[in-house]
Amino acid sequence: MINKRIHIFDTTLRDGEQVPGCKLNTEQKVEIAKELERLGVDVIEAGFPVSSLGDFKSVQEITQIVQETIVCGLSRAVENDIKVAAESLRHARRPRIHTGIGTSDIHVKYKLRTTREKIIERAAAAVKYAKSFVEDVEFYAEDAGRTENEYLARVLEAAVAAGATVLNIPDTTGYCLPEEYGKKIKYLRENVKGIHKVILSTHCHNDLGLATANSIAGIQNGATQIECTINGIGERAGNTSLEEVVMIMRQQASLNFETNINTKLLNHMSRLVSDNMGVPVQPNKAIVGANAFAHSSGIHQDGVIKKRETYEIINPADVGVDNSIIVLTARSGRAALAYKAKQVGYDLTKAELDVIYQKFLILADRKKEVNKIELTHLLETNLRKGLRA
Amino acid sequence: MINKRIHIFDTTLRDGEQVPGCKLNTEQKVEIAKELERLGVDVIEAGFPVSSLGDFKSVQEITQIVQETIVCGLSRAVENDIKVAAESLRHARRPRIHTGIGTSDIHVKYKLRTTREKIIERAAAAVKYAKSFVEDVEFYAEDAGRTENEYLARVLEAAVAAGATVLNIPDTTGYCLPEEYGKKIKYLRENVKGIHKVILSTHCHNDLGLATANSIAGIQNGATQIECTINGIGERAGNTSLEEVVMIMRQQASLNFETNINTKLLNHMSRLVSDNMGVPVQPNKAIVGANAFAHSSGIHQDGVIKKRETYEIINPADVGVDNSIIVLTARSGRAALAYKAKQVGYDLTKAELDVIYQKFLILADRKKEVNKIELTHLLETNLRKGLRA
Repeated sequence: MINKRIHIFDTTLRDGEQVPGCKLNTEQKVEIAKELERLGVDVIEAGFPVSSLGDFKSVQEITQIVQETIVCGLSRAVENDIKVAAESLRHARRPRIHTGIGTSDIHVKYKLRTTREKIIERAAAAVKYAKSFVEDVEFYAEDAGRTENEYLARVLEAAVAAGATVLNIPDTTGYCLPEEYGKKIKYLRENVKGIHKVILSTHCHNDLGLATANSIAGIQNGATQIECTINGIGERAGNTSLEEVVMIMRQQASLNFETNINTKLLNHMSRLVSDNMGVPVQPNKAIVGANAFAHSSGIHQDGVIKKRETYEIINPADVGVDNSIIVLTARSGRAALAYKAKQVGYDLTKAELDVIYQKFLILADRKKEVNKIELTHLLETNLRKGLRA
Repeated sequence: MINKRIHIFDTTLRDGEQVPGCKLNTEQKVEIAKELERLGVDVIEAGFPVSSLGDFKSVQEITQIVQETIVCGLSRAVENDIKVAAESLRHARRPRIHTGIGTSDIHVKYKLRTTREKIIERAAAAVKYAKSFVEDVEFYAEDAGRTENEYLARVLEAAVAAGATVLNIPDTTGYCLPEEYGKKIKYLRENVKGIHKVILSTHCHNDLGLATANSIAGIQNGATQIECTINGIGERAGNTSLEEVVMIMRQQASLNFETNINTKLLNHMSRLVSDNMGVPVQPNKAIVGANAFAHSSGIHQDGVIKKRETYEIINPADVGVDNSIIVLTARSGRAALAYKAKQVGYDLTKAELDVIYQKFLILADRKKEVNKIELTHLLETNLRKGLRA
């Protein structure tokens, strides 16, 4: 079976940057964009040009540094937004304008204070206007996750008719369950006239911890682009994590998906974004957390020492991490103690190990972690005492 | 339709604590256990008693403080482990011994170095031995996620026949996709003799970012217990997040599930565990991250000011957070600026807002966030200059 190519649309610099207190300056954005191109993303959403002069300049400068990757600018379905976005993208080799409008009843009624029919008109007009500047126009139906499918299909059909090349189906509030989001994508695939000519995109938020699962459900049901961010950063609980969806596609061969991502750069990208934004990555973050490949319990350590794959489904090297880590704690067993003792130069006999292990446990119970220096000291003291007969 | 009651098995103090460098002492464990009971979990897995004297003592002390909640101790399928676990649980009102063994080919062959048939014998013997101490015995089939379903069913059948009251199906390495894990649970439900008498439990890991989705797929296919941890902490990329699965069940009424959790304590619990373990929670963590209810982009702020539900599917008060947060940044629009100006005592006219907004943007482009003091200063200076005509 031929693998289906999934486009990775990175919005770290736009939706990802919508984190309170974490604004990036132009220089930082340009550096991250350069690295995103090296990572192999298909699209870089570089900013929301009308929102501020700083953002406009960042998009502009990114278009001058990026070579082959599509550079995208966000706009509301408002003429001035679109015009400014087009202006910021003028020097891009492959520009894309991303425009759209809210489609859920709550957005139509309370935020936009208009009617469903007016939304369709505005959607089509926005796409048409954007097409007067660039060929590649992506349309988003904001809060599509809570929009009734039949109406959503009508809005999207109007966008396609107006020339949209990509349709984005955001679960803006992170509300959907995977099966529900998958069904939505399937319904659209089957009911929007002209949808087979365009790229269908997922854009999921993590308010219930389901962004990754929803994105995967989306591509399983016919979407061919995933919008995501490094470390899953973004407004509120953030966006889909790029590293998670990419590694799922890589590890689960039965899905038959492939991307253009060089996974060996994932760890590097995670640190680059975290450092520049000042947003820490929690140690237990999937793929890129500091502990993602660290083993602390005795049962797991014993397994990993015998054969890595017993407790690891990803080879750390594949995501740019040097090695799995065995950390000595009160949860460690004899296997890990012997393994680490060997690393510091002591090849213990079984009898030695039995004695040292009891002393090790007493020490470890008092401490969070037993480091190399402490371990060496423990071994030296006890073996010198004549234990090594 | 009557809601199905899902049991919440919290393993923060056992699997959750398997984080390098984050060992809790007995006093801390007792405090967290007390709060877990107040939160309303059904089972507290308090530790792995045989692993160290400290862990043994912690379990013992927890049994003396917990009133109605089941207290559970982990053991391998090894007589001494089980005996020590039973000893530590002696004073529990409702003790449970959790015992089990690896069942995937890779665990059987490389870690346990034995045969499939021997595993079945050891599983049954362990359950039987545990039953000689307590009535409530949970059996885990380690790495069930990668165990072939037919063989897994045979192991579980032996455990049920030996008296297991709960069957735990761990996706130890966080390998499964939601549909795959769901199918596994369904297969077991339909093929293990006697399974309807026992509780079937999920235990998922987050290596691919799918622990939450997998747990939900599990209960949709017949599991009635979820094993999880506060903040999703645990070995490697951690376990299923308690707060995520609980809030999914609460927010998605169509699922027809209910738990005993007092969700108003979720934020408090998150901080308690994070502070005691010294493991930070990333700001974009679902439900309990510092930014989970913070809005920074203009479009979102405008929506939330008009009607909270446009961008929030959870009322922050329901998880013990005081309020949604509007943060002023270069992404903010006029609506947020007017809203925050009002909070510091300035009710701006449209003309004033237009002028101040431009000055605000220049300031905001230079800064990550515009705080109250800076905003007040901006307003004072400009309005004093005669703008307020």
